[in-house]
This record gives sequence, structure tokens and C-alpha cells, in this order.
Amino acid sequence: MKRYLMTPGPTPVPEKIALAMAAPIIHHRTKEYIDLHEKVREKLKKIFQTQNDIVIFASSGTGAMEASVSNILSENDKALVVEAGKFGERFSQLVSSFGAQAIILKKEYGDFANAQEIEDYVKKYSPKAVYMQACETSTGVFHPIDEIGKMLKEKYPEVVFVVDGITAVGCIDIKTDEWGIDILLTGSQKAFMLPPGLAMLSISEKAKKIAAQNKNKRYYFDILGELNAQTGHFTPAVTLVLGLNAAVDMMLEEGLGNVFKRHEFLAKAVKAAILAMDLELFAKRPSNSLTAVKAPQSIDSKQIIDIMNKFGVSISNGQGSMKGKIFRIAHLGYFYPPDVILTIGTLEIALKKLGIDKLGVGTKKALEIFVEY
Amino acid sequence: MKRYLMTPGPTPVPEKIALAMAAPIIHHRTKEYIDLHEKVREKLKKIFQTQNDIVIFASSGTGAMEASVSNILSENDKALVVEAGKFGERFSQLVSSFGAQAIILKKEYGDFANAQEIEDYVKKYSPKAVYMQACETSTGVFHPIDEIGKMLKEKYPEVVFVVDGITAVGCIDIKTDEWGIDILLTGSQKAFMLPPGLAMLSISEKAKKIAAQNKNKRYYFDILGELNAQTGHFTPAVTLVLGLNAAVDMMLEEGLGNVFKRHEFLAKAVKAAILAMDLELFAKRPSNSLTAVKAPQSIDSKQIIDIMNKFGVSISNGQGSMKGKIFRIAHLGYFYPPDVILTIGTLEIALKKLGIDKLGVGTKKALEIFVEY
Repeated sequence: MKRYLMTPGPTPVPEKIALAMAAPIIHHRTKEYIDLHEKVREKLKKIFQTQNDIVIFASSGTGAMEASVSNILSENDKALVVEAGKFGERFSQLVSSFGAQAIILKKEYGDFANAQEIEDYVKKYSPKAVYMQACETSTGVFHPIDEIGKMLKEKYPEVVFVVDGITAVGCIDIKTDEWGIDILLTGSQKAFMLPPGLAMLSISEKAKKIAAQNKNKRYYFDILGELNAQTGHFTPAVTLVLGLNAAVDMMLEEGLGNVFKRHEFLAKAVKAAILAMDLELFAKRPSNSLTAVKAPQSIDSKQIIDIMNKFGVSISNGQGSMKGKIFRIAHLGYFYPPDVILTIGTLEIALKKLGIDKLGVGTKKALEIFVEY
Repeated sequence: MKRYLMTPGPTPVPEKIALAMAAPIIHHRTKEYIDLHEKVREKLKKIFQTQNDIVIFASSGTGAMEASVSNILSENDKALVVEAGKFGERFSQLVSSFGAQAIILKKEYGDFANAQEIEDYVKKYSPKAVYMQACETSTGVFHPIDEIGKMLKEKYPEVVFVVDGITAVGCIDIKTDEWGIDILLTGSQKAFMLPPGLAMLSISEKAKKIAAQNKNKRYYFDILGELNAQTGHFTPAVTLVLGLNAAVDMMLEEGLGNVFKRHEFLAKAVKAAILAMDLELFAKRPSNSLTAVKAPQSIDSKQIIDIMNKFGVSISNGQGSMKGKIFRIAHLGYFYPPDVILTIGTLEIALKKLGIDKLGVGTKKALEIFVEY
């Protein structure tokens, strides 16, 4: 059966990238690979919108999250963590795992943190660093990291600002340097359109100095060690880096501004379609990378997902306590208007089979928006 | 840009088939290849619904058309050719090219030939063979080859019945033996979901006897020569045959009946959507493999196609005198309901941009049909 993957990671891998990864494997200590690795890291600065150094780990995105904790926090350091979903909770677990103290700014699933709240907490607790998601993948919320970043940069320049951009970098405009993001991290299987297996992060000079003095236990995810080694400290994921090179070329060829605009359009169409069908958005501040939707009352979101799956269309369930209550449609990476049209159409078929007749309603709304694409 | 290929050949190649074709090349006179070739030919009998022998040529579909002429007709033989579009005309040209006489049963583009007309011509001209398309790809017409075949088999068993099933075999139910089709031919880049480069035909015992006596000039497309050589007379297209093996497995795994039903559903949805949008079908007897649609008055079909192309969706223009007047949406091969949804949606966007507002109208109709899928 033909698969139409509309999940928030892995996302569809373009043929061009798959072919780049089918190239013969090369050894990672050759000049050929060293040049590739350096070139990719340079190009990534454009996508990350930064002058900061970039590190690539052979790991899932969580590896970069761990690096952002173990390289910055020493035991008993205080860190402010925004917990507004499953991935915020992961930051808290990481902070605790490395012996530091997590000050938790807790938000309901679906809600976001604003700059004033962060400022209040920072003033009260004087944390060494602030950890938060740009987009909280479990809820589809996009936090106002621009305002938060600018506030921290201006008023608390000593605080390290760490942003998990796993479902944001490469599809949503994040001005790393302008907003004072000290560590911005992401993974390969999202907007970068690659299979899972790579994590990337950018690190500011300020954060590098702190990392140099920090004595917390770490070996694999040692950021400075990675930066000092020409092609990475340990064996890099050569094939995935070849794919990353192709992915970054595709993004730069389309133009970063166009990539952002495309994702804006896709998100706008999905949201408008959902609202036209009288469904409710779950996120109070929805991201352009994925849209979380409340399942209609009396329907478990798994029922919707299962019917769509029979048509080959994969969307995601909620995570944690949201399982069964929401479903999530991704539109980050290799997605274009026809993908949204087929997804909304198939969603309408599923709802109809479950007794809710909105056939054509959301699709029409999405089409109206794409007329302006 | 992501491409959504909705053209009547080449059609999308499934990843499974692409991967099969990425296998290391093998030599064609090895036991490994001989076994593969034999196995594929055997499995093809199921798809062709025949006990007849199958021949595979390394050529486009036209190669098999030529073989059906040069192996059957001698100079000055009379052949009845149904000309109801570009591919009917191709049979006439082939018949003339090989020095035989084409008796042409001419139908308007969009029209079909019925059994009575064929019988009248056969009675009047006593042709050695009848040449016609199952589906005339240029107009989307499906001729009633079941009735025609049964009539010929019963009343004129000496006439060789040749059917071009290029956009029919493998997606529409064609009962080769039951309907007395002496030569049924097809190409790889249609329902078989392969790249172009292979032609296949089945040949009856009756036609083989005629071929054995026929002295017309031929070398490459010598059907009996192919049959007598274990793995084909000349170098076979090894990689494409590997792909064909995977394709046939996919079809048999889905089940031939299910494959036909799927195509029926896709065709039904496209037609219903087109009619709901107040557009006109071009074919008087539409095929389940593709749908030809008249462009609205004052609009050149190229305008529609160009806008859809900007969304990555490829459909086809008319051919010959129909260029600019019709457009053709294919749904044969690796196509599922989501493909139809995205195509009708994108068509509606194109029409809207050209001043015809049917946004959501056809899509809704297609969704209604797919609820029953």
C-alpha cells in the first residue's frame, strides 16, 4: 500500500536526499569527508541564522538536548525549565539526571509561556540557564521565543538561553543571534527531511566559555570536544551527513524565506480547514510545523487515525495524557499543498465514517487558501 | 519541487520496484536470470488471464504493436483497424509500413466501435486480422472488446484478434482466453508501474501457426524467435525484468480482483467529481484507467495543466487534434484515493484561477465515493 506520511518526524525523505545517501560510503578521516563535514557545518549556519559554531552528533535529537544540559549545568545549578508538554518534561528529567535543580514553569498542555512569566521566574530564582522548546511537538504550541530571547538578552545577558528547535529549525523563522539564543538544537528527521540519526546544535561564545569551565559528567556529548575534532570526536554518521548536505542544498536553493512562507501557507490552510469543520485547535498558539486538533467529543482520536491509515495516510495521536484526545497533522519538511489537500480530504472521510459529516467542508477552505499560494 | 505524477504513462514507480531495480546487475545467460525470466513469464499469464505464451521485448509498447503486425500480416493481406484516436492511427501506419492493406473503421475521437460495426466490416472485407485498442489512451475510450471478441470467436474464428492493452492490462479485467484475444499486448510504464522500456504480449496457438508461415520482414520483433530462445532472442532488459517481477508480485499480492476494483473506484470518483463540477467527459465510453475531460469553453487545456504543474501535479494534454481541447487524468498503476483527492483539489484551484469557481465541489463528490472504498 502507498503511504502518505503526515507525521511530525520522521517526515517524508525526498528522492534527491535518498539518492545522495545511496552514494558509496566513504571513510570519515579522509580529506573528502573532512571537507564535506566542514562544508555542511558552514551551510548549517545559514539555516540556523547564526554566526555561532555548529556541532553535529550521531544521535537522536534528545542527544543534543542532553548536550545542552550536561555541558552547561554543573551539579546543583539552577535551571528554569518551561514544561508545557512531553518535551518540556524531558528537559526537566535531563536537568535532574545531571544533578542540577530544575525550576519548573508549568503550563497546561496546549498552553504557552510568555516573556513576562519567564522574567518573573528568572528574577525570583536567578537560574543559570533557561530551557524551553520553540515548538512543543506534543501539543503543537509555538512559544514566543523571540520576545523571551530579546528580554533575556537585554535584561539577563548572563543567563544561558537554550531552545529546543527540533520541530522548528528549518521551517520556522528563528533568528538565533538576534534573539540571543545561546544553544539552538534540532534533529534530522523533521524539517531537514532526513531519516532519524542526526542531532545538530549551535552554541554561542558565551555558552562555550561556560562549557569549558563546567565539570559535569559527559563523554559522548561533549560539545567542545566535538568542535575541536575536525570531523567530530567519534565516528560520524557519514551517510546521514551526505544526506544532510543534500537537504541543506535543497533548502538554500528554495530560499530560506520561501521555505518559511511555504510552511506558513500549509499551516494556515490546515488550521482554516479544521476550524471550518467545527473542530477545535488544541494549541493556544499554534506552530507552523504541525497542527494539533481536539478529537470530537465521544470519539477517540485513534479511531480517526486508524481509518486514515486504511487510506495510507499517517497522522499522529496525542502523547502522554493527550493520547486519544487529540490528533496531530504534521506539515514540516517535504510537504506541499497537495499533501494538505489529501490529508484534509482523508480526515473528512474518517469523520464521515464515524458519523460526523463534514465532507468537502475543510477541503474547500484549504483550497481557497491555496488559490493564493 | 515535489512531483505528483498523474499522467497515463509513465506512471509513478513504487519504492519497492525501484529498490528491486537497484539490485546488482546480473548476466542474462546465467541460470539465475534464466530462472527469473521464466518465472516472470509464468506469472504474467495470471495478469494476462491466459494460458497462451508470453513474450517480453526490450522496447516501448509500440514494439509489441509492430510485432503483432509483422508476425501476422503478409504483404497485401487485409487487416481491419479501428481508428478512434492516435493509437488506432498508429496501427494503420504499422499495417501500411509492412505492406498490408488497412481497412479502416473510423470513429470520431471520443467515440468507440461496437461489435455490430466490426461484424459488418469483417463480413464485407474478410480481413485476416482485426487490430484495435482496449483503451484508446488519446481519448480515454474503452472499446467493448468483450463483445467484439466473443462475436469474432463465435462467428469468425479464423480472424486473428489483436488487442492493444497498453493502458488496460493489469488494471482492467480483460479475459484474454474467454474473449478469444489472439494477441494482447502492453507496455511496462502503465499499470505495471515500471519505467518505460518493456513491451509484453501474449500469443495464441492459432496466431503462432500464422506467424510460423508468415514471411513478412522482421528480425528484432520476431515472436517465435523470442519464444524459442530461453531468455529472449537478444539481450533482455535485465533490470526492468527484475522490476517487472516485483511489480507482478505486488499485483498478485493485492489480488487481481482487488486491483481491478481499486481502479474502478478511482475512475468512478474522478468521473463523478468532473460531472459535479459541470465539466464534460470526453469519452463516450470512459475507461477505468484514465479520464479525458473537455476543457471549459474559452480555456485552453494547457492553461489548466500549467497551473496544476506549479503545484507539482502533472496531468496530460490532449494529443493530435485534441491538443488544447481536452486534458487527461490518469489513474492506472500506483494510484490510491488520496492521489485522486489531491488531483481534483488542484484542478479546482487551477479552474478558480482561470475564473471558474468550483472550489470543493468535485472534491466533495470524490470524497463521497471514497467513503464507500
